Parts: sequence; structure tokens; C-alpha cells
Amino acid sequence: MTLETVSEAKAFGGCQGVYSHQSEATGTGMTFAVYVPDHVAGAKLPVLFYLSGLTCTHANVMEKGEYRKACAEHGIIFVCPDTSPRGDDVPDDEGYDFGTGAGFYVNATEAPWSQHYHMRRYVEEELPAIIAKHFPVDMERQGITGHSMGGHGALTISLRNPGRYKSTSAFAPIVSPMNCPWGEKALTGYIGADKAAWREYDACALIEDGARLPDLLVDQGHADNFLEEQLKTHLLDEAVTKAGMDATIRLHEGYDHSYFFISTFMADHIAWHAAKLKA
Amino acid sequence: MTLETVSEAKAFGGCQGVYSHQSEATGTGMTFAVYVPDHVAGAKLPVLFYLSGLTCTHANVMEKGEYRKACAEHGIIFVCPDTSPRGDDVPDDEGYDFGTGAGFYVNATEAPWSQHYHMRRYVEEELPAIIAKHFPVDMERQGITGHSMGGHGALTISLRNPGRYKSTSAFAPIVSPMNCPWGEKALTGYIGADKAAWREYDACALIEDGARLPDLLVDQGHADNFLEEQLKTHLLDEAVTKAGMDATIRLHEGYDHSYFFISTFMADHIAWHAAKLKA
Repeated sequence: MTLETVSEAKAFGGCQGVYSHQSEATGTGMTFAVYVPDHVAGAKLPVLFYLSGLTCTHANVMEKGEYRKACAEHGIIFVCPDTSPRGDDVPDDEGYDFGTGAGFYVNATEAPWSQHYHMRRYVEEELPAIIAKHFPVDMERQGITGHSMGGHGALTISLRNPGRYKSTSAFAPIVSPMNCPWGEKALTGYIGADKAAWREYDACALIEDGARLPDLLVDQGHADNFLEEQLKTHLLDEAVTKAGMDATIRLHEGYDHSYFFISTFMADHIAWHAAKLKA
Repeated sequence: MTLETVSEAKAFGGCQGVYSHQSEATGTGMTFAVYVPDHVAGAKLPVLFYLSGLTCTHANVMEKGEYRKACAEHGIIFVCPDTSPRGDDVPDDEGYDFGTGAGFYVNATEAPWSQHYHMRRYVEEELPAIIAKHFPVDMERQGITGHSMGGHGALTISLRNPGRYKSTSAFAPIVSPMNCPWGEKALTGYIGADKAAWREYDACALIEDGARLPDLLVDQGHADNFLEEQLKTHLLDEAVTKAGMDATIRLHEGYDHSYFFISTFMADHIAWHAAKLKA
């Protein structure tokens, strides 16, 4: 596989790059962003994966996420994948919440989505291997986070891969796709009507079925328009309480679903990951 | 005049707003962004104006500038105007460097630009009056900064209004529009061929003609593609040296012209302005 450099720019002493490659998982070209802080030659740094929400590419968090200062301070590499395959031959949907920009971090089994929509395999397997090969990362020190649909991705990927991620957090995650309109539409479309098959893509169901994380940080805006109908943070609160799992779930008065909210708490999350990744 | 709220979102404890109004200066609708940090009721805060570069609206720095954390810490209001009038009846040019998105902070005297392109009057007179009326600002404590074309705007507006701005800085400014292709095209188009009339829109010429600032901070990336042909930082260096004017002009190895550069040094600039605005 050839990794092409789309752009690189110096920022906070390190390098903010954008790279593209042909993906085996999706059968399409894929683009991702990586920030590498300034570091001693030969050093291997901890890595934090950030999964984005509906409609986003790698660029939204790269432009609005305000992660570089904290990553430079803590010496953490920050990786931002796209949210779906893209291209003229990739099927799409008219809605913003299904198809392009809305891969939901699943391996689709339903036609026509099953040909390209394998974002689970891309983020769980292919991308980490590429990062390990091309960047100065210590793959024994991986963390994962994400926003909204990407928060769902971070939680479910971490819960399904016990021990792989030393730290897991989320901003305004969809905590139970089985129980909200966004998730019901996506899982029906990509996976089909059999709800038993949905459970591995639902953080609350995974916890109910026995999956555990050693710890978890979730921030949620109280003025988030999607809180009541789509995000349902209280379901995660109930699931971790019932499971006796350590988790810090914070509700923030006045904050909405936007990058103005994410950027406010980004440095907190990076410090939290750094403490675990560098322990 | 009615000020319409386009959007407001909580960020770093304060409020990031976008507002629009009908402008007398340009005869068009204008949109600007304002960040107001959390503050004691009734307090009046210092205000920092940020003028953007070619192709930008208020949104570029709002999304990519990473100014909110520092403004919240220092208690400074941050104002981001647009870079030109816009609208179906506003004349435009095919180039990115003239017309819409490229008002150059001048009052145009040449037809057809003279009808709407009065960004000098807008930024020097109309916008400050609107900010003073609608936001909790102390107009005795104003600072000004900007990027590229906006750096030119910040320098020339401050030099022409001695005493009004307690602090002036710029990121990668066009220091002498009379001596670069961007400036020659803009000043010829907006002001006409008489170069004597250009001098009030040229920071180096203003200094040569006797204008002074008490102090000045300029950051410039050494890997900036526009440095040699358009920005010519050395001309400002020579002008302030000849004038015996205090100025800190820093060249940064490896940094380009983008918001990755600006965001890296934004907190430095805000701290520098805060020290002067709160002295």
C-alpha cells in the first residue's frame, strides 16, 4: 500500500498532516489526518484515535477541534479518520444520517452497502496497521475517543477489543443506537432487521452482555439538541451503574452539540488520556 | 440599526456569537462574529479586533483561530468582521485577490467599487460603534490584530488613528501593499493610479510619513509561500528601525501562511494584547 501525503503543515512545533491511500477494507480511496508532535528522534509516542460524527470528514476536527496544543504538551499523536467510504461508485442516501458521511463504524451486510461500507474493519484493523507502519507510534499505548456517531464508534470498538485501548472517552456519544432514530435507521440499513446482530454495535448492549472498560470519560452538553431523542446519555449512566463499571459522565450546562463544545473540553480529554497512556 | 443574532453557542464558559446587520458604510448586509468571555455582570471588558485575510469571512478565524481559551483566561472580547461587502448587486472580480473577500480595508473611490467597497469606514467607524452599543466592552481598551491582508488592515488602521488602539499586532501581514502584486492590483482597482493616494493604505509609507505606534508585535512564518513576493516583512523591519519605533518582529522556522501557523501563536498575541489592554 502506498501512503500519499496530501498536505503537511507545522503547528505547535509538530506536524499536522493529511494522507490518503487505497483501502482494502472499503475498496475506495480513504483520507485521514495525523498530528505528530515534536519529539526526540527515534521516540515512539502514544496515539489517540478520534472518530468523527455524522456529515464529517477528517477535516472537521482537524480545523475546529483545538487538539494540537494539548497533544504537543503531552507528546501524543492524534489520528482522525473519515466517517465513510466516498466516491462516484459508492452508494449514498439522501439523508445526512445514512450513507456517505455516516458509516456508523459498522461492517455493512446488506446490499448495496455491503460492498464498501466496512468502517469497522477500516478503523479497527486497517488504519491502526497503517499508523503503526508509517508513524512513530507505540501501539502498546493507544487511546480512542470520538464525537456523537464517533463517540458510539469509540465506545463500541473499545468495548469489543478488551485491553487494546488503555484509555477511552467520548464527546456527546450516541450511547445506544438500538434505541434512537439515527441508530435504528443506520443499523437497519447496514445490518438488516435482525436486532440480535445489532448488539455488537451498541455500547449499552455490549456492557449488558458483559463487556467492560477499566474506566471511561464522557462529556455531554446539556443544551445539546440531540440529547433527548438521539444521544440518551442516561442509558449509558444506567448501564455502567448496573455493571459496576468505573465511568465519569459529566453534563455541562449550556453547551450544545458543536465543535464549540468539543474544543472547550478537548484539552481535558487529552490530559485524561495522557495520564493513562503514559502511566 | 437592528442587530440580528445569527447564532450563539457556549464555548470555554463564554458565548461565541454571529451577528448580522444592514451596514451604512457598505450599503449591504454585513455579518461578524464576537466572542464574549464569562464575566461579572455589569463589567466592561477590553476588546480585540481581528481582521481576516483574502478569501475569508468572519468564520475562518472563528473556526480555526483557537482564540477562545486565551480570551476566556484574559477576559477579552474578540471581534471578527468580514473582509468585504457581499451580495448579488455587489461587483466582484474573477480573482480571489480582488472584489468579494478582498476589500483590503480601503474606501474605494473608483467605479464600480466605490458604491459598496468601504471596508475602511466599516472597520474604523461603523463596527466599533455597533460593538460599543451592543456588547459589554470598554472602548478605552481596544486592541487590533489581523492576518495577511488583515494584518495590513490592522497596521494601517492603528497607524492612522494614534492613541485609539492600546495594542497592535499582526500575523504574516502585507506590510507594504504599494510594493507587492496583491497590493498593486487592489489599490489600482479600488483607489486609482495616483500612488500618492495609496500611502495611507501602506504601513511602511505611513511610518515613513511620520505615523508611530508605541509598540508592535508581528509573527511571520519562514516557510510562508507568500513571504518573498507579497508580504516582504523586511520592509517593515527597515521602516521601524529607521523610525526608531519599538517593534517585535519574529520569524518562525517551518511555519506557513495557514491557520495552523496563526493558531500556534494566537495565545501569545492575546497575552501580549492583554498585558497592554489591562495595564
